[in-house]
Amino acid sequence: MDYAALARESLDRVAASKPLIHQITNVVVTNDSANLTLAFGALPVMAYAPQEVAEMAGISQALVLNIGTLSEEEIDAMLLAGAAAGEKGIPIVLDPVGAGATAFRTESALRLLRELPITVLRGNRGEIGALVGAGEVRGVEATGAEDPRQVATAAHDAFGMTVAVTGATDVIVGRDQTYLVRNGSPLLAGITGSGCMATATIGIFATAGDDPALQTALGLATYGLAAERAAVGDPGPGTFRSRLLDEVAALGVKGTDGVRIEVG
Amino acid sequence: MDYAALARESLDRVAASKPLIHQITNVVVTNDSANLTLAFGALPVMAYAPQEVAEMAGISQALVLNIGTLSEEEIDAMLLAGAAAGEKGIPIVLDPVGAGATAFRTESALRLLRELPITVLRGNRGEIGALVGAGEVRGVEATGAEDPRQVATAAHDAFGMTVAVTGATDVIVGRDQTYLVRNGSPLLAGITGSGCMATATIGIFATAGDDPALQTALGLATYGLAAERAAVGDPGPGTFRSRLLDEVAALGVKGTDGVRIEVG
Amino acid sequence: MDYAALARESLDRVAASKPLIHQITNVVVTNDSANLTLAFGALPVMAYAPQEVAEMAGISQALVLNIGTLSEEEIDAMLLAGAAAGEKGIPIVLDPVGAGATAFRTESALRLLRELPITVLRGNRGEIGALVGAGEVRGVEATGAEDPRQVATAAHDAFGMTVAVTGATDVIVGRDQTYLVRNGSPLLAGITGSGCMATATIGIFATAGDDPALQTALGLATYGLAAERAAVGDPGPGTFRSRLLDEVAALGVKGTDGVRIEVG
Repeated sequence: MDYAALARESLDRVAASKPLIHQITNVVVTNDSANLTLAFGALPVMAYAPQEVAEMAGISQALVLNIGTLSEEEIDAMLLAGAAAGEKGIPIVLDPVGAGATAFRTESALRLLRELPITVLRGNRGEIGALVGAGEVRGVEATGAEDPRQVATAAHDAFGMTVAVTGATDVIVGRDQTYLVRNGSPLLAGITGSGCMATATIGIFATAGDDPALQTALGLATYGLAAERAAVGDPGPGTFRSRLLDEVAALGVKGTDGVRIEVG
Repeated sequence: MDYAALARESLDRVAASKPLIHQITNVVVTNDSANLTLAFGALPVMAYAPQEVAEMAGISQALVLNIGTLSEEEIDAMLLAGAAAGEKGIPIVLDPVGAGATAFRTESALRLLRELPITVLRGNRGEIGALVGAGEVRGVEATGAEDPRQVATAAHDAFGMTVAVTGATDVIVGRDQTYLVRNGSPLLAGITGSGCMATATIGIFATAGDDPALQTALGLATYGLAAERAAVGDPGPGTFRSRLLDEVAALGVKGTDGVRIEVG
Repeated sequence: MDYAALARESLDRVAASKPLIHQITNVVVTNDSANLTLAFGALPVMAYAPQEVAEMAGISQALVLNIGTLSEEEIDAMLLAGAAAGEKGIPIVLDPVGAGATAFRTESALRLLRELPITVLRGNRGEIGALVGAGEVRGVEATGAEDPRQVATAAHDAFGMTVAVTGATDVIVGRDQTYLVRNGSPLLAGITGSGCMATATIGIFATAGDDPALQTALGLATYGLAAERAAVGDPGPGTFRSRLLDEVAALGVKGTDGVRIEVG
């Protein structure tokens, strides 16, 4: 497969269709997520009020849910928005930030997984592991947390949607296929919201193709490629953060040669 | 008229008086708005709690309201702050972000317009058009949305305050005068909150002169001029965003030659 | 005392232990605070929901409270988190942003001081002065607000914890010792959240040593040193803000020679 060409096609489709990406996300990363969405050529809209989230999801092309600074009101908003998104049939991406750190986060993420037709679940090994462990009333270790692939597979089996466990290598487990993505930079761990931006990227790419696992792999690889380019010269985190947006916006010009996706 | 000289005088007045700009704004742009306010030499204060917004507005020199991530509680806070601002006689600027996208936004913006003595209303053509359309129980198209000038005039007639419809050319319709502002950069559309920052700029400039339409034109032209300077070399959005703050802060040194304002 | 060596030791301890810093802070500075925390090698977690704050504080190594965009719900969350932090015995740092500007802020800060075992209180002269004035039912002037040292001493006497009054020279008054810190840059006043980031720094350094006053002095000096380095060449505020993060992250490589701490 020529994944670079496929990534390029998705980018071009996003630039042409300018999808509206409704994001109910945490207060830490809101600005970065909105700027990232614009840099990809898509349109961000952040809307949280129960009075409008269903309507907003209804005019959007994807819904991104992120529990990073969750409140009870926000869960309600996510359930309303998610129901509207499900009815319309647009992709829903969930980022269970901090699942496993507190019972509130773990249980809220599980509730969203139960009640909404989530298309893609993305988290790190610990977060996804916590969700699988909790689902099976076992600790995280019991699911084999040492191996991201096992965690992703267990979550896919438990919840039934595409699961992306991101890390040095990203593992994406879909219904028919597993992908490994080897793009990215250690500098991403030095800025806040790099995982949340990966999740937003998945939401954007999900509007550009029908296969959630493939689109997730393409999105993560493209985002990781931009990060690699932004990391050239090993800048500090403040400079890297600005350059990351620059490089995402430059993908159309610089192209996608360098995406490293393998079937796992 | 020597608008560059007038813009410079307003800048100098702001730097000398360091006005406190109370902003009840959206979570996406809060940080950028605060930094922009500081770059202009003014002092930002973000305060949202019903327990304090009236008191805060009462010690401020302008109030900026922005419905970008509105909640019911925030509307209440805006009404309290706006009433205090009206009593004190300080300018109030309203940014109806996303009006027309959901009924909640449109109706909330109309409620604020009805219940508060708003001084300047700023939005893009779609947002202001939606407010006029709704006010007349017609669709947006019916107000002649193709022409920003018609939209601004209709809104001025309907609501009675200075209206700024921003875009490639900004149109400002005041009681006695219409201004066209031709500053700005296409790069502004590539970063989130560029419109919200334009609104904050209007609030800042409104403290430096008595004619709301003129001050709005001066503010938008000056902000647009800083954006033109930041756009030199066509940087990516991350770099542009940093440079925009740099260039606003540098206006005192580099001056305001280059503002392009015409009487319309 | 070789304060540069002590600062370096604290930095190394933070890098080695990667303390989790639970921050309940304002919406303006959330992203900057999280990025600063990462740049110091610590781990930020922002969590606000009453359902989880006690649990989150319980797995953290320090708790940072900041009332910059306070709400009633947030006070409740702070009280819950603070009680859990107190029980666990981890340091709690309070930033009474805007105390004195509104009664709500002053009274909320005083309530937190009364009900929680705060370890370090940091603010500017006006804010800390307002708290002392209110505590003694006198105006700010009455406490001798002209002299930051008097303000810090009065607050230390009134509330009993380490107090840092930051400004051109930072004054830190502890039980046994007073420190003066002469690091920093005027450019810090040109970006929003520079005080809030100083407070976050205190929280981080408080995890690396047992003497709160000394750790506060080391933290403020180190942060100020990074700001001095970021200010070289007098960049605009947008560039300075990025470089500040770069320079904090570079402290491990560039070292801490240049911290200026004196016993007062």
